[in-house]
Amino acid sequence: MINKLVQEIQKKNAPVVVGLDPMLGYVPAHIQKAAFEEYGETLEGAAEAIWQYNKGIVDAVADLVPAVKPQIAMYEQFGIPGLNAFKKTVDYCKGKGLIVIGDVKRGDIGSTSAAYATAHLGKVTVGSRSYAGFDEDFSTVNPYLGSDGINPFIKVCREEKKGIFVLVKTSNPSSGELQDQLVNGRPLYELVGEKVAQWGAGCMGDSYSYVGCVVGATYPEIGKVLRRLMPKTYILVPGYGAQGGKAEDLVHYFNPDGLGALVNSSRGIIAAYQKEEYAQFGEEHYAEASRQAVIDMIADINGALGR
Amino acid sequence: MINKLVQEIQKKNAPVVVGLDPMLGYVPAHIQKAAFEEYGETLEGAAEAIWQYNKGIVDAVADLVPAVKPQIAMYEQFGIPGLNAFKKTVDYCKGKGLIVIGDVKRGDIGSTSAAYATAHLGKVTVGSRSYAGFDEDFSTVNPYLGSDGINPFIKVCREEKKGIFVLVKTSNPSSGELQDQLVNGRPLYELVGEKVAQWGAGCMGDSYSYVGCVVGATYPEIGKVLRRLMPKTYILVPGYGAQGGKAEDLVHYFNPDGLGALVNSSRGIIAAYQKEEYAQFGEEHYAEASRQAVIDMIADINGALGR
Repeated sequence: MINKLVQEIQKKNAPVVVGLDPMLGYVPAHIQKAAFEEYGETLEGAAEAIWQYNKGIVDAVADLVPAVKPQIAMYEQFGIPGLNAFKKTVDYCKGKGLIVIGDVKRGDIGSTSAAYATAHLGKVTVGSRSYAGFDEDFSTVNPYLGSDGINPFIKVCREEKKGIFVLVKTSNPSSGELQDQLVNGRPLYELVGEKVAQWGAGCMGDSYSYVGCVVGATYPEIGKVLRRLMPKTYILVPGYGAQGGKAEDLVHYFNPDGLGALVNSSRGIIAAYQKEEYAQFGEEHYAEASRQAVIDMIADINGALGR
Repeated sequence: MINKLVQEIQKKNAPVVVGLDPMLGYVPAHIQKAAFEEYGETLEGAAEAIWQYNKGIVDAVADLVPAVKPQIAMYEQFGIPGLNAFKKTVDYCKGKGLIVIGDVKRGDIGSTSAAYATAHLGKVTVGSRSYAGFDEDFSTVNPYLGSDGINPFIKVCREEKKGIFVLVKTSNPSSGELQDQLVNGRPLYELVGEKVAQWGAGCMGDSYSYVGCVVGATYPEIGKVLRRLMPKTYILVPGYGAQGGKAEDLVHYFNPDGLGALVNSSRGIIAAYQKEEYAQFGEEHYAEASRQAVIDMIADINGALGR
């Protein structure tokens, strides 16, 4: 799957992933109205609204980007109906040829991490049959529990030809509270980065490992250091746009081959119509606003990369 | 909810929580057979099997213990039907008067952690109404993202009178890879422990904070240190039994008031009938085996505590 990801990034000339993190407040009134008329103001109604909203955006951007990244928390808050909308979104995006990165940030002790890996990337056995639970292509994983939490994911990735992105340095303001702590004079995120490189060394695609990492766009100097520390690791980069990361900050997340980083934007794309810049599209045409925002983001990043 | 937890522990004289972490391999043949006859060898069939299995155990142990701790990964691996079984289990246990600790180990950046907190402990607004997604009483949270990831949970706990347990030192063999790294000469878990104590200081129940922590039974010397470091923090202790933690190792996880720790056992209780020690109950009477295993565990721990 890492090879497919690299190919699609090259084919579309777009190192960009659209974060499908729907808040009900982003969903245009006409979609909410239709969903509530059908299902009432219920969890099912909310789930239908975010699903229809997602569908519009995916239809509008699928030819432009290699991948989408649904954030499962935004669905989970609507309980089972919300998770149904997550599953429908994953399936729909895959049907459109998009690579799906499940932003699930799971991680636990061995047998439990194995269950999460099965849930999101693998297949579970029921009697004489087997089924995929959510079946994303990649998922994000939390490293706080060490190798025990990562290895079960790697095992499933190997079997299913899938991949993971391990949190190394997250984009949020307080990420340094643990991640920047100095261990033998070096920040913890470097130690985690080295571990990711080690975990990934046995998991190589053609040019990159299918064990990737997450490094926030909001810490460009750290991105530069981590890029050098793990040259074969694909970096998933959240924090561009709404969180403050700028294209020129992202140049050093890429390798000299022009690859190695995949930049995410969520709110900046999916709620583009709510921004002054794209307000002319209007709420009804929210998906076209998202399409324009993706075009602009790709141009912004490729411009910074000088291509 | 922390006050209720303390009261129930005292009333039942049982600082014990039953981990409802069902693997299909634990579910007796007659339950699997009935479920597969009704739903086929499908995810729905598997979910029905683990739900019926859980129900039997909960009915058998509800008068003995204050709380249960379903591990959501074990349900998530069966996709949406599995999560339905999780929800049914949570609701059923609450209906029986049990406190439910959702072992979900979620954690993300601010707005996303807020969505997870809403999903598991809070209520989401849909139009003019609001709904609880999963509605556990407590949930476990991963601290790798720092305060941004924790504060949204604390906010919801305050509103809903619920609680969290933050991972400090986990029970698995590789937990030390990050958690034991020395920061200014002290292990990272101590730093996280201090943070938990700080987060918890503004979140006090009558005698303990509703911001608790997780410290594995498999590291008793560390448990001793952390107990002293955070005297008002309730410690959720996994790793007793199947993972190797012994009752005598757990004494120092408790405060002089006899409170402050809640010991979990999962496989050792729910799959007791598969152990030689309880084999005489037979597969048909798996729930009675679980009940006996709970009685023995409570006696073991209270014995070590000299009461």
